[in-house]
Amino acid sequence: MKIAVDVMGGDFAPKAVIEGILLALPSLSNNEIILAVGPRDTIQSILDEHHYSGTQIQIIHADQVIEMGEHPTRALSQKPNSSIGIGFGLLKEGKADVFASAGNTGAMMVGSLFSVKTIEGIQRPAIAGFVPQTDGKYAVMLDIGANADCKPEMLEQFAILGSVYFEATTGIKSPRVGLINIGEEEQKGSILAQATHALLKANSKINFIGNIEGKDFFKGKADVIVTDGFTGNIMLKMGESIYNIMKDQGMTNDFVENTNYEKYGGSPIIGINGNVIIAHGASSPVAIKNMIGLCKSVVESKVCEKIKGIIENK
Amino acid sequence: MKIAVDVMGGDFAPKAVIEGILLALPSLSNNEIILAVGPRDTIQSILDEHHYSGTQIQIIHADQVIEMGEHPTRALSQKPNSSIGIGFGLLKEGKADVFASAGNTGAMMVGSLFSVKTIEGIQRPAIAGFVPQTDGKYAVMLDIGANADCKPEMLEQFAILGSVYFEATTGIKSPRVGLINIGEEEQKGSILAQATHALLKANSKINFIGNIEGKDFFKGKADVIVTDGFTGNIMLKMGESIYNIMKDQGMTNDFVENTNYEKYGGSPIIGINGNVIIAHGASSPVAIKNMIGLCKSVVESKVCEKIKGIIENK
Repeated sequence: MKIAVDVMGGDFAPKAVIEGILLALPSLSNNEIILAVGPRDTIQSILDEHHYSGTQIQIIHADQVIEMGEHPTRALSQKPNSSIGIGFGLLKEGKADVFASAGNTGAMMVGSLFSVKTIEGIQRPAIAGFVPQTDGKYAVMLDIGANADCKPEMLEQFAILGSVYFEATTGIKSPRVGLINIGEEEQKGSILAQATHALLKANSKINFIGNIEGKDFFKGKADVIVTDGFTGNIMLKMGESIYNIMKDQGMTNDFVENTNYEKYGGSPIIGINGNVIIAHGASSPVAIKNMIGLCKSVVESKVCEKIKGIIENK
Repeated sequence: MKIAVDVMGGDFAPKAVIEGILLALPSLSNNEIILAVGPRDTIQSILDEHHYSGTQIQIIHADQVIEMGEHPTRALSQKPNSSIGIGFGLLKEGKADVFASAGNTGAMMVGSLFSVKTIEGIQRPAIAGFVPQTDGKYAVMLDIGANADCKPEMLEQFAILGSVYFEATTGIKSPRVGLINIGEEEQKGSILAQATHALLKANSKINFIGNIEGKDFFKGKADVIVTDGFTGNIMLKMGESIYNIMKDQGMTNDFVENTNYEKYGGSPIIGINGNVIIAHGASSPVAIKNMIGLCKSVVESKVCEKIKGIIENK
């Protein structure tokens, strides 16, 4: 397995990224190779500082960087030798099994659409986020920000994408799908939520358990949480803020620890012809280590192939 | 001041409501009268149990009850002698300065629109919720559920309504208005959020500080948080769930305590020609006591009159 990592992505890159890769190495088997994408000399000097001289980290030279604030499409076309541009090249050519970055989220999304492209039959790929549950497990929520405005049919596909992802990565059959809404009854909520409820209820491919409210978000009611990218982004970030608030106040326990985004390592883009992970901009070395674990999980579970199978057999 | 309270509203009515009224009595001055709306005999017997024989609680007989699950409009027209129907009658006729209930939220909303009616010039009234902040203060968020689908112009009015409410009840001038969105930059977010951002930025009547994200929700960035009723309802309920989760896990501190909805007593409906408070369905006696405190606050601060002044002088 070849895991391409954008060494220049994130607020603390390249140092935090390379240190995260080094942290991940002991958990990798010999045939799991990290392709560290970024400026050769910079990467080499940080590896030297850490006295690394192995062969499991291979440097793929990229001498440009897409900054966090840059316009995604423009940056990708103007910087073909950026670490993100080169990373997507590796993925498209099959030289990497997965590409991950803590850099410009928009560029990662646009890069996915332009290189490996959306799976045929999928209206819009989604970004999936992990939501800690009070029972110690987690739910997968999608979309968490790629699609701020959604149609009911998009949310219906997100339910299928999330179900395949959850089953493939956890082994739990027929995961419970919940729709975020402002009441339990099916006639409650926005026009979008009402129309989506009807579609999910009628869809025999998923195990739809009905609406779930804000108060149920952490309560272990659903394995797959379906919502538009606006609502999902706000809920996910609000959930993550619990960790910082409690830490600042000197309080912690298992649940609070599980609201720390570092634990999950990032968010897969689902619905494209390849494995792409977007990590948190503020990723620490521990977050990067877990990002690499997430990369392994999506490759090993063959999520992408399974989604293609389901969508094509529609 | 006459405060009409629906004794039959809420999961634990009438007992919890009457006990809440009794808890509130010591904080009321002699000329602050509670109009307890509900079945005379039932109310009297609970007051007798508590050995109450004063005159500050006056029973207003109502022999019908609108249940939690009933269709609001139908229930109000079929049950004119319900406690909610009678309560709105008192409000409309000026026999009460404020009406509060922990009962059917939809019926409280519809009752407001049919009896005291929307202030001329207001597109849609909003329900305001209180959001605890990590600095110990609170922000006012609207809408929290009356309007699941909103237009930019509605959100612009919510910003004005919230600003007037916040200033009138706290005395803090030019409260900071934040728009819930999925990024800080003005071009980020849903079509609704982008269009609303432009309107808020151009509106000289409010102190618009820009977008605030899910991660900022509790962080003291804004005094007035503007969003549609779908997003607001989900955020508020998610915030309230922190209290139950932490309590279940035996953890608490000032911030966690402030996520307990009981503290705030309810949510005012803003933008109507009268003072109406909707309390949480699960209201305990303490919550009802605080609901009565909130009733006093909205009457004393003359929010309703101030909003009319602002809107009519547009």
